Amino acid sequence: MESTDSDPEMVVVLCSGLEAPSRRKIRERLESHGAIISQIQANSRYYFVLRGEIAAIETLAVDSWPGVEKVVVVGGQSAHWAIDRSRPVQPIQVGSTLIGPGSFCIIAGPCAVEDEQRTLRIAASVAAAGADLFRGGAYKPRTSPYAFQGLGELALPILESAREETGLGIVTEVLDPREVESISGIADMLQVGSRNMHNYSLLKELGQTSVPVLLKRGFASTTDELLLAAEYILSAGNPNVILCERGIRCGAASRKIVLDLGAVPELHQRTHLPVLVDPSHGSGEAYRVGALARAAVAAGADGVLIEVHDQPEAALSDGRQALTPEQFAELVPVLRQIRALTQPDGELISEEIVSVSGGEDR
Amino acid sequence: MESTDSDPEMVVVLCSGLEAPSRRKIRERLESHGAIISQIQANSRYYFVLRGEIAAIETLAVDSWPGVEKVVVVGGQSAHWAIDRSRPVQPIQVGSTLIGPGSFCIIAGPCAVEDEQRTLRIAASVAAAGADLFRGGAYKPRTSPYAFQGLGELALPILESAREETGLGIVTEVLDPREVESISGIADMLQVGSRNMHNYSLLKELGQTSVPVLLKRGFASTTDELLLAAEYILSAGNPNVILCERGIRCGAASRKIVLDLGAVPELHQRTHLPVLVDPSHGSGEAYRVGALARAAVAAGADGVLIEVHDQPEAALSDGRQALTPEQFAELVPVLRQIRALTQPDGELISEEIVSVSGGEDR
Amino acid sequence: MESTDSDPEMVVVLCSGLEAPSRRKIRERLESHGAIISQIQANSRYYFVLRGEIAAIETLAVDSWPGVEKVVVVGGQSAHWAIDRSRPVQPIQVGSTLIGPGSFCIIAGPCAVEDEQRTLRIAASVAAAGADLFRGGAYKPRTSPYAFQGLGELALPILESAREETGLGIVTEVLDPREVESISGIADMLQVGSRNMHNYSLLKELGQTSVPVLLKRGFASTTDELLLAAEYILSAGNPNVILCERGIRCGAASRKIVLDLGAVPELHQRTHLPVLVDPSHGSGEAYRVGALARAAVAAGADGVLIEVHDQPEAALSDGRQALTPEQFAELVPVLRQIRALTQPDGELISEEIVSVSGGEDR
Amino acid sequence: MESTDSDPEMVVVLCSGLEAPSRRKIRERLESHGAIISQIQANSRYYFVLRGEIAAIETLAVDSWPGVEKVVVVGGQSAHWAIDRSRPVQPIQVGSTLIGPGSFCIIAGPCAVEDEQRTLRIAASVAAAGADLFRGGAYKPRTSPYAFQGLGELALPILESAREETGLGIVTEVLDPREVESISGIADMLQVGSRNMHNYSLLKELGQTSVPVLLKRGFASTTDELLLAAEYILSAGNPNVILCERGIRCGAASRKIVLDLGAVPELHQRTHLPVLVDPSHGSGEAYRVGALARAAVAAGADGVLIEVHDQPEAALSDGRQALTPEQFAELVPVLRQIRALTQPDGELISEEIVSVSGGEDR
Repeated sequence: MESTDSDPEMVVVLCSGLEAPSRRKIRERLESHGAIISQIQANSRYYFVLRGEIAAIETLAVDSWPGVEKVVVVGGQSAHWAIDRSRPVQPIQVGSTLIGPGSFCIIAGPCAVEDEQRTLRIAASVAAAGADLFRGGAYKPRTSPYAFQGLGELALPILESAREETGLGIVTEVLDPREVESISGIADMLQVGSRNMHNYSLLKELGQTSVPVLLKRGFASTTDELLLAAEYILSAGNPNVILCERGIRCGAASRKIVLDLGAVPELHQRTHLPVLVDPSHGSGEAYRVGALARAAVAAGADGVLIEVHDQPEAALSDGRQALTPEQFAELVPVLRQIRALTQPDGELISEEIVSVSGGEDR
Repeated sequence: MESTDSDPEMVVVLCSGLEAPSRRKIRERLESHGAIISQIQANSRYYFVLRGEIAAIETLAVDSWPGVEKVVVVGGQSAHWAIDRSRPVQPIQVGSTLIGPGSFCIIAGPCAVEDEQRTLRIAASVAAAGADLFRGGAYKPRTSPYAFQGLGELALPILESAREETGLGIVTEVLDPREVESISGIADMLQVGSRNMHNYSLLKELGQTSVPVLLKRGFASTTDELLLAAEYILSAGNPNVILCERGIRCGAASRKIVLDLGAVPELHQRTHLPVLVDPSHGSGEAYRVGALARAAVAAGADGVLIEVHDQPEAALSDGRQALTPEQFAELVPVLRQIRALTQPDGELISEEIVSVSGGEDR
Repeated sequence: MESTDSDPEMVVVLCSGLEAPSRRKIRERLESHGAIISQIQANSRYYFVLRGEIAAIETLAVDSWPGVEKVVVVGGQSAHWAIDRSRPVQPIQVGSTLIGPGSFCIIAGPCAVEDEQRTLRIAASVAAAGADLFRGGAYKPRTSPYAFQGLGELALPILESAREETGLGIVTEVLDPREVESISGIADMLQVGSRNMHNYSLLKELGQTSVPVLLKRGFASTTDELLLAAEYILSAGNPNVILCERGIRCGAASRKIVLDLGAVPELHQRTHLPVLVDPSHGSGEAYRVGALARAAVAAGADGVLIEVHDQPEAALSDGRQALTPEQFAELVPVLRQIRALTQPDGELISEEIVSVSGGEDR
Repeated sequence: MESTDSDPEMVVVLCSGLEAPSRRKIRERLESHGAIISQIQANSRYYFVLRGEIAAIETLAVDSWPGVEKVVVVGGQSAHWAIDRSRPVQPIQVGSTLIGPGSFCIIAGPCAVEDEQRTLRIAASVAAAGADLFRGGAYKPRTSPYAFQGLGELALPILESAREETGLGIVTEVLDPREVESISGIADMLQVGSRNMHNYSLLKELGQTSVPVLLKRGFASTTDELLLAAEYILSAGNPNVILCERGIRCGAASRKIVLDLGAVPELHQRTHLPVLVDPSHGSGEAYRVGALARAAVAAGADGVLIEVHDQPEAALSDGRQALTPEQFAELVPVLRQIRALTQPDGELISEEIVSVSGGEDR
């Protein structure tokens, strides 16, 4: 994979045998949108190679114009993007933890904050087991209006107590642009959940802050769309975006969700942003969480997000996929061992398979 | 299909051979959440049949409890829902138009309001062709922050002018709960786009109003999830919800989107809400829009939503799928003829195939 | 949509700034596979435009070669294909029926031949209701080896009796290349089921015959793959291929299957082959079959394939989606009326929306 | 997860308020198919719990019968199945290698046998790097009839030479039931490719042999369907089935394919069969193969299948996803290290997360 970080260009393939007046009309229309055009003839057809405001021209659906057969954009995403594929992953500070190369971040806690005692008990247990950050939902996006919606603002002081007692930074979800300010006063990292990856009002609001944002991939969104969602935040001025793969919907998968671990090396190659994985939502069943967490680390993720509940069968949401504190405590050292094995020197491994084994000195 | 509109019940299937103490533990936990339980033994296992607060108990993931093999909910969605499957479709007034049985509603206009002149020109053309409502986006949810985002509030007076000049009611999209009030002062119907079907903050805000809401199905959401999104609005007090099928993402489909017309009879059977179809987004290509619009009518839709642009190749968004005013004008009478053929008496046809042919006098 | 039926060309986009020796190496490798190359420079990069054995070169994954950024194939599928997109749909004779423009073909019958009496009874009823061909499975591809596998060769004389008694041509499925000869001696059309669309041994065997083949789209296959499956048969010498859309798997759809009616205009535009639709498998539930059959006709299908059983609740397979003879009899005239409305002159309507409404004489 | 390996039972939930004559009619029809019925009343409805020939009754679509609201099958798949979920994974001998717990199997080689020299060269290199078995396609299932179809029987002696020279057992694909005998005379394991998982004629033929079968999951098939495909082979008498996850089609995934590693612990829990993973097809791009291979091992796979080519850019098929011999050689030790870490004692780890870390002595 050679670098392709030149300015993007667009190749417009004209229909075979298209006459000069038709070609001129297309050319003029493209130029009226700011394109600088090189015309090429090869065999029976003409090609226009465009420079200039390609991003704007891309919105014109040029490939549906009469006389145009196909349109291809070449060159990098990065010319006008805030995401920079030429830089290695840049670590981001969250609370007292770094997320990125050279560290490995384990975020754990219950799906939702249910009550103070239980929350503090779980927080203490995941801290003791070696978690780096504590997660717990105050505002919950539930498919049904009749399901538990989270404690809302009542949960925020409970999360603060959890931080005070354990020293772990707090990660919690934000659903509404009107709540960004109040929640970011309390949380060390704000989570944008899968259902809100396309909620551009929310993303723009988060771009106005400098709080780290854990941006989860939409449950049926492509990595291209995830990167553009990140651009909404980055281009508005907030550089602290952490990507998170959490499973995509697929008719053939068990529980209709499949964790796309191939996205981990892809996102590392295409961005300078840390990449986490959520094996809890990505499996939907506690008995598979350990296997997928191990796999995520082996695939090169910079951390994992794991749901832990001290009484999964009584959880008010997502109990099926929660680990008990005991299960979590046994998993943590294995994850760190796999990380040490696959990234002994703290360097990223995704770009070259060569670096995986590190050569003959092992 | 017989009616199943009794109160919902839950059947908890215990593992084969589960001992009495384990059974008792499960029973007590269920009762602590308000369940009223009938215990049954058959062959090697026990079954609990539960009445009571089934909706709350459903959130507990009972099927992941030790000793539980499976959980089934029976009985209707409708007992506690605002959606009433036992009633026929209830028409909803939008501007001077009814949407529902006995009428057929054609909504047309450009994807986005681009400028006043063009907007008024398109509005006049679709009005002349027989459209019932005019659509045009002021605020556009674009995958890329670098794509045209709509004119925003500048578009609202243009839409008002379009209504004044044509008499057509106005349909426009709302993206942000903070904009509901201002846009609902101008629009006759607010559209919730596919990307926002799971934006529960927005849905709750719309539930506080009485403005008709055109709720589009998420591009990878099930009909169950669509109905629950409708419940967010209905249960908050706004009864004016119109459902819209607009295509779901599928790896095997051309342009990765497929219009799910089987959802039309299903939604009619399961709700009392009108159902529209958007063949423009559902095909993604102008040359297929006519075929899918005809198909939508034949499948029983109460109306269609069609993108029309007087210069599709210059459209700032979605030009590829827009019909020209001429194409639209030729399509309208065919749609009305198919409607007349398949629903001669204005009654809904979805429940029984028998009514399709209208009886022995044919 | 202008014609693009020139010879295919391939555009190889080289990485920006690629040096001359690397360019030469790529060029020589392409030429060694028979490519004739025009080199172009525009802005910071070079482009190769290739003619020649593009189909062979396409298998080389040129876009993964070092120094290559992207590869695009332009020009028509049809240059070397048996499928000819420039011709209108060519009707195909099956028994005494034509399938294609100017006729509309209704194929009906049970999923499987269960016994002689029942089969003849159903055949008589669908003949009386106006079906054109009779379908019934002798060999059934069942997901489970423990489900009813069909009567096999015992069913063949029963199908022959059905033809004798009703005069309807027979359509039945073939699963194994070793059975093509025996079944084609009896059936008027052989069906390749969805699970066998990628069974190339079977397709090649069918290409050796001249019996009409009803080729169903794989349940997760693209239209591109369907056309290539057709090419297996056509290129081997059998011109009698009829395509059939029957629903594709999708996680968000009810019963996880969605009928892709947008494929109908697409296949008509891209091929000269008739296109049928199977609304029974495409809905999976009898109460939705009528709506989807009507929609298929309105979308321009050349016919439909409908499962009919006189006792659906006792059917040995697929009873859930079977219509009763009475339901079928009521549906047939509606389908023919919609066909008459949308194709008054028997011409295909898929290419231009204009022809939908039939012009100014309405 | 408690064992559920009792005989399966079926619960038929009758509609609320269904009258006695209707209940009797349903009961009699079920009994006529061999069901033994316990009737239960709870609240407003009746339930039938059935024992007996549940597999046969499942084919009747009882849930579509009038008066029936829902049907649930409980109890294990295993009562009548050859797959036994109560046994641990049983190792299978392939050539001189065991596949299963206590060993870890790496299968490597080119997608297709292209010529003798190259094949032997690649075989030697993967043997030297530590592969356990050599793979190479003689018969290739290609989407296009115009793509390279494999050397066919000419490839078989080449594969034999590769075995002689390297000592590695041979894995090659079979496409046609008529070729099973000749290929199984030469290969140590026959591969059923993804496109043929539903080719039941082929599966039945393989069931007649005793040669080990590597059964790949269909590219859009569920794990339930994969197990039933395995049953076709097992129930016909061949116990030597090895399952293989190779990626499923998904509209949102890059290259439209996603490797479902959550299937590994699921298949281990539900069967006694070894489970391999193919990260080459599961990623589609060489630069992601290493990450997914590591992830597969960490998820508990019993082995991996990796495409290796000494000149990927000149490969006649799938070159994009092939590793070079050097890349492969560097990957092998990492895979074995992860395996050693996650399965130190050779026991399977999938059933309990507890065993992952091996207890308190770490």
